[in-house]
Amino acid sequence: MTGNRQFLLVRRPQGAPVPEDFRLVDTPIPTPPPGGFIVRNRFASLDPAQRGWMDDAESYMPPIPLGDPVRATTVGTVHASDNPDFQPGQWVLGVNALEDYSIALPGGFTMPIDVGLVPSPSNFLSVLGAVGLTSYFGLLDMAKPQPGETLLVSGAAGAVGSVVGQLGKIAGCRVIGIAGGADKCRRLIEDYGFDVAIDYKGKTVAALSAEIAAAAPDGANIVFENVGGDVMDAELLNLALNARVVLCGLISEYNAPEKIGIRNLWEVIARQATIHGFLIAAYVDRFGEGAAAMAQWVADGKLRMDEDIQEGLEHAYPAFMRLFSGANTGKLVLKIG
Amino acid sequence: MTGNRQFLLVRRPQGAPVPEDFRLVDTPIPTPPPGGFIVRNRFASLDPAQRGWMDDAESYMPPIPLGDPVRATTVGTVHASDNPDFQPGQWVLGVNALEDYSIALPGGFTMPIDVGLVPSPSNFLSVLGAVGLTSYFGLLDMAKPQPGETLLVSGAAGAVGSVVGQLGKIAGCRVIGIAGGADKCRRLIEDYGFDVAIDYKGKTVAALSAEIAAAAPDGANIVFENVGGDVMDAELLNLALNARVVLCGLISEYNAPEKIGIRNLWEVIARQATIHGFLIAAYVDRFGEGAAAMAQWVADGKLRMDEDIQEGLEHAYPAFMRLFSGANTGKLVLKIG
Repeated sequence: MTGNRQFLLVRRPQGAPVPEDFRLVDTPIPTPPPGGFIVRNRFASLDPAQRGWMDDAESYMPPIPLGDPVRATTVGTVHASDNPDFQPGQWVLGVNALEDYSIALPGGFTMPIDVGLVPSPSNFLSVLGAVGLTSYFGLLDMAKPQPGETLLVSGAAGAVGSVVGQLGKIAGCRVIGIAGGADKCRRLIEDYGFDVAIDYKGKTVAALSAEIAAAAPDGANIVFENVGGDVMDAELLNLALNARVVLCGLISEYNAPEKIGIRNLWEVIARQATIHGFLIAAYVDRFGEGAAAMAQWVADGKLRMDEDIQEGLEHAYPAFMRLFSGANTGKLVLKIG
Repeated sequence: MTGNRQFLLVRRPQGAPVPEDFRLVDTPIPTPPPGGFIVRNRFASLDPAQRGWMDDAESYMPPIPLGDPVRATTVGTVHASDNPDFQPGQWVLGVNALEDYSIALPGGFTMPIDVGLVPSPSNFLSVLGAVGLTSYFGLLDMAKPQPGETLLVSGAAGAVGSVVGQLGKIAGCRVIGIAGGADKCRRLIEDYGFDVAIDYKGKTVAALSAEIAAAAPDGANIVFENVGGDVMDAELLNLALNARVVLCGLISEYNAPEKIGIRNLWEVIARQATIHGFLIAAYVDRFGEGAAAMAQWVADGKLRMDEDIQEGLEHAYPAFMRLFSGANTGKLVLKIG
């Protein structure tokens, strides 16, 4: 009989995380606190945001304390409960951690979910989860795409980017995706219906900018930014007048010891553009609306999100690092038990 | 009898302009084209934007052709006319050049002005001109300041910044200005009524950020940005939730051979902030509304804009360079004749 394996953060990473920053330990299965319950985690979401939580810097979430398991959104079942609203076996979604069992305190944010709505419970971490809703609210609410506009998406083959592109097509936009490598670019066209795919790898800012300009001679009305750095600098050289830039992520710099930033800020003035910093946390009270719309598009065959499911807590480190190597194809999920 | 002295751009500056990039020549006074007229320029506006027009790069205005006089907004009188709507002696405002006499073509943008409204015709280049209206629309229309909000202004002792701060006070904000040197900081408090003045000179991003944090412990709701680079990076570390950044200018990088850009872009996401690229050109059809409001505040003693009036076309180069050395105090104007 096993206990509770926990994937702990034991040292704050300097740049890219290394295996020594973490430790897998085996601890006793916890018992429910008064009014709370225990979640048997089944699937955990692996996201770039977790890298930020590993730093000792206050952001929109507090840092993960050293010695604690790595915080993660998980889907699981109630294992034991002192709360009549959460009976054992009930499927739930919540912010827990990379561990077999998590303690859910009374009044916490763990919520029941109906896994019968979707082919796999893991879908609540992808298309119906924070990542799918990031695409939904980031594009549709913040940028308000209009038919005939040009949408430029970076990190386009990633979980957020691939859905943003599909939602852009549903909204009637011409959609250009930027991704790394020929295989990802092929998937943008064949799997996600992008109009144009541009491979950024091995290109200078000037060369990438020229490719974007060829694909979008009148500039981009909307830029959905997941990458930052040189890719964003090339995009900024191709803004249409009054362009809206949704700043959703900066994956290129999360592991960089020195932040790269952007240099072509002048273009934001010259094109009278707007950059909107986007956090899905601001939309929590509208998750129901977003999930319902997304579920309908999935059911209609208009929207897909691939899941890259890695197996086992003992492989948490290499699984997490797939986010940064460009190896993952679709929403990265760790299957725990 | 003199002719028409013209201050020509003869070479595109690399970084900071040098005297050899320009030449002062004497040419015949032009005669009115059919339907047009000749403006005797009296005052010319010297602005950071002119540095951008000297580069061979398309922006919101075309580059100044090599061999042409340096483009400038001027106030002057009609010297000779083939247009019955513009009689000799009439005061006018328009985009002309650093020269004694400019040709106004029919259908151009030169407009009559009533110099009786203000103490000096040069005021149409400062508080009632594009620079005053930049402050007006940039702050009041784009950022919509609310009473009790904290407004952070960079380049605060400059023409735009000093008016932004005063408008912020009129709107009921707590106003913090960032400027270079003790004398400018003293003027922020004594002349313009800022609540706090911070001297950025000789400080790291971390040190400047700490000073801003001490003055604005809850962060800035509005940042009015004229500077860019390290100053902006320090400001970005002090954003309140949902902060609005009005990106009006980037004076720190206009002469830089390599753009500096910003590195703390993540803060824009974490604070769900918005960066608005601002060009006064978008508000041309509302200039009348803005100038009327500004004239009233000036008349009521609530608003002042200092003018730094330099004399003589023969001193155009050192006068222009005052923009970048930090030597100018107030709106820089060249008195031509």
